[in-house]
Amino acid sequence: MSKTNPGNFFEDFQVGQVIEHATPRTVTEGDRAAYGSLYPTRFAIPSSAAFAASVGLEQHPVEELIGFHIAFGKTVPDVSLNAVANLGYAECRFHQPVVPGDTLATKSEVIGLKQNSNGKSGVVYVRSTATNQRGEVAIDWARWVMVHKRDQSLEAPETVIPELAKAVDPKNLIVPKGLDFSSYDFTAAGELHRLADYEIGEKIDHVDGVTLTASEHQQATRLWQNTAKVHFNVEARPDGRNLVYGGHIISLARALSFNGLANAQLVAAINAGAHTSPAFAGDTVYAWSEVLDRVETDAPGVGALRLRLVATSGRDESMTLRGEDAKYAPGVLLDLDYWALIPA
Amino acid sequence: MSKTNPGNFFEDFQVGQVIEHATPRTVTEGDRAAYGSLYPTRFAIPSSAAFAASVGLEQHPVEELIGFHIAFGKTVPDVSLNAVANLGYAECRFHQPVVPGDTLATKSEVIGLKQNSNGKSGVVYVRSTATNQRGEVAIDWARWVMVHKRDQSLEAPETVIPELAKAVDPKNLIVPKGLDFSSYDFTAAGELHRLADYEIGEKIDHVDGVTLTASEHQQATRLWQNTAKVHFNVEARPDGRNLVYGGHIISLARALSFNGLANAQLVAAINAGAHTSPAFAGDTVYAWSEVLDRVETDAPGVGALRLRLVATSGRDESMTLRGEDAKYAPGVLLDLDYWALIPA
Amino acid sequence: MSKTNPGNFFEDFQVGQVIEHATPRTVTEGDRAAYGSLYPTRFAIPSSAAFAASVGLEQHPVEELIGFHIAFGKTVPDVSLNAVANLGYAECRFHQPVVPGDTLATKSEVIGLKQNSNGKSGVVYVRSTATNQRGEVAIDWARWVMVHKRDQSLEAPETVIPELAKAVDPKNLIVPKGLDFSSYDFTAAGELHRLADYEIGEKIDHVDGVTLTASEHQQATRLWQNTAKVHFNVEARPDGRNLVYGGHIISLARALSFNGLANAQLVAAINAGAHTSPAFAGDTVYAWSEVLDRVETDAPGVGALRLRLVATSGRDESMTLRGEDAKYAPGVLLDLDYWALIPA
Repeated sequence: MSKTNPGNFFEDFQVGQVIEHATPRTVTEGDRAAYGSLYPTRFAIPSSAAFAASVGLEQHPVEELIGFHIAFGKTVPDVSLNAVANLGYAECRFHQPVVPGDTLATKSEVIGLKQNSNGKSGVVYVRSTATNQRGEVAIDWARWVMVHKRDQSLEAPETVIPELAKAVDPKNLIVPKGLDFSSYDFTAAGELHRLADYEIGEKIDHVDGVTLTASEHQQATRLWQNTAKVHFNVEARPDGRNLVYGGHIISLARALSFNGLANAQLVAAINAGAHTSPAFAGDTVYAWSEVLDRVETDAPGVGALRLRLVATSGRDESMTLRGEDAKYAPGVLLDLDYWALIPA
Repeated sequence: MSKTNPGNFFEDFQVGQVIEHATPRTVTEGDRAAYGSLYPTRFAIPSSAAFAASVGLEQHPVEELIGFHIAFGKTVPDVSLNAVANLGYAECRFHQPVVPGDTLATKSEVIGLKQNSNGKSGVVYVRSTATNQRGEVAIDWARWVMVHKRDQSLEAPETVIPELAKAVDPKNLIVPKGLDFSSYDFTAAGELHRLADYEIGEKIDHVDGVTLTASEHQQATRLWQNTAKVHFNVEARPDGRNLVYGGHIISLARALSFNGLANAQLVAAINAGAHTSPAFAGDTVYAWSEVLDRVETDAPGVGALRLRLVATSGRDESMTLRGEDAKYAPGVLLDLDYWALIPA
Repeated sequence: MSKTNPGNFFEDFQVGQVIEHATPRTVTEGDRAAYGSLYPTRFAIPSSAAFAASVGLEQHPVEELIGFHIAFGKTVPDVSLNAVANLGYAECRFHQPVVPGDTLATKSEVIGLKQNSNGKSGVVYVRSTATNQRGEVAIDWARWVMVHKRDQSLEAPETVIPELAKAVDPKNLIVPKGLDFSSYDFTAAGELHRLADYEIGEKIDHVDGVTLTASEHQQATRLWQNTAKVHFNVEARPDGRNLVYGGHIISLARALSFNGLANAQLVAAINAGAHTSPAFAGDTVYAWSEVLDRVETDAPGVGALRLRLVATSGRDESMTLRGEDAKYAPGVLLDLDYWALIPA
């Protein structure tokens, strides 16, 4: 029998099944540097150990997305090696900061299944949990992907569609232990805007653009041990082009959003995310944000902004998400809905 | 007199000569991250400090090939700056895991010389030893290279050809201190196959491919402080293309071999290696392995597999090493013979 | 009002104004590895913790240019986002080695202003100081840039041109605490040449060349959190090409200078620097040096060489800085005047 991993097909999943994903991975200061070489990130907390200490954090966390990409990458060999498409995320929460030395392991429970009417594929819903070396939850999230069937003659399983929140309720946002923004240094952080300066409905054009190169997205994707072939092997796609990992666009857009959202320091939750168009080397990626909600938290001086982060190929100063046909406007690559912690 | 290093030519070597190579180098957690951004590696021991501890290792080792490339790179300015070709390796053993904080220095002894019949070049055999900051041997190996003569009128030296083992005797394999695979977590490691599941003669197609880019092989080669011009300078070769460092192909093939050999956790020895064809940016590299031997060791639960690791440009599902003419099949880039430690 | 940073224009600067630059940044071992993957550097002190300890350094410093690029990058969003050109550096001194764990923050004082006769732009002179998390000076330097005016109708400010030394007086060079070259290991360092072996006026062709790729300069520039658009966004320049950050050329040339100046271990000061031509991916960069001065210092066994480091696109074995017209020769990319510490 073949010793290599063929990945799971739609019929290999059952509701209630728990999959322990392989190859736990230790996060190091090397990851912080590699991340900084790949994305133009400047948020003061992950940039500066001194700043992190000044806002009450005991250790110097890495960007939340480093933890997310690693934790997510673990699920690929089991969940999405035979995926047609990543359909969505929901209910992603960052339970505690990931710091160098933490080892992340991920497991997933199948929480829903729905075969497509064509009988060739189906949607698999999983809830994934990344824990650290102490067994504490670091990140959890739900995700659904469309996966090929191996044997199209098999009967469809019972349809189970899980109820997933449209957005994480702000009452359920987790603020890192000790976080205190009451003596926050706005000069060091790079901008003066605080929670009250952002209006619901306000849009912010983040101005800067980054042209994707052939190497960088592959280096990033490899760093997260994400094994999806389409990112690395030009022979894996008919057009001979490597598809850029969607998480690369998330990180790039988040880094670009510094310019206008420098104080949206920490990602607390991801409510929803859609990769609406593929991206390739040569594309120049821009980002804009829309303020969806704002709340205070119980932590001293800490508020939360709900933001829509949109990445586009080519700059769209009109910041148009959807056309008149309600479809995503041409050039939109990513529509991400998340909560960020910001000085109140 | 010129202050720059012209490298040694064939006539500069004498049997018995010992060369202390320059610029010792400290290995850091940064190297682990850089390696992970350049190769799709997922072996659980170097990936996870928690997994490494669970199999009895006191510190979290980096991949053996990080140590090998660094130690090898040290020899380039003295041994192979004027090399026509790297002809082979033998008797390479990893004496102890390299961990972040270790400083590696390499010295080489000339153990053989044979001038070519054309009088223009000759083969130099060296035995190289990398030691750490405590003076302990970390890695040693033999290597032979064809080197240009500077002055072709000089007489040939006495021919000395060292006896080198075809393979490291399994009795001489060194198992890292403390290694214990008796409670090995196969789920976390990613596959269920143990020593007994591999048959001598069995071949494994590792399935996945990686397209080489212009930057990544240079970044890797630089990281190991390997100074061979052909890797960095398009003006150094008539075809204007940068040659990919052979060690890059070794690391890439080893990482690809995870898919089918996930439990071949640690490289204990390299028996032989041939870089059979040059590789360039744009090539898509695949790998397959052949099981050459399998043995148990005295360490608890630890066996060893002798493997042939073959890298190819383009996938060869037939896994053909040589054609009917006994020459390497077209597309074969690397033929590496090594011992790996695996749960028994 | 827009929340994004438009950068400062000429009329936004006043002599005496102090700007605290945003986003302090912690240096890590990850930066050392990233630097080593981007530049072919082999200087023994930053390469080896053991070598650094052997010359009296308590901690293992990173290359001075890592500190310089980070500290410099901090100033870009405030000082040079709207710059037409970087005109020069002066009086840059490295006050103490930067080691992993240090957090660098930079502030600048405006020390001069001179509007151009065309009324469209002007020259801004700043003195910048990078301090560590203990508030100690790590690096300081003066720099002048030509910056656009936003409103060309505004009157010119009073012209103030600061007096800047042509070169740092050797009496003012700072030798790192504890540095002692009296038992220096020349074999480990890679060359035998000491201070007395270099003649004033001597030129050294560093021989090796490196072809610039599309990714590496961007990764470097991002690592230093330098946000100048022209390096990342092909849509930011009419020719659709990303300009290589001048600091990338400095680091590359410095690394290439190892071959002939391996013992010029530490950069103590930068006297002057001019980026004389733009560089792009595909250019092959070479370097040569000229010895401008040599002095002893009070530290045991420590001398200092004043060097002109010249980077060229394409190799110029004639090592010609300027043509008969006194202009920089074609192909010259960088003319950097600095002091390096070397065994006396």
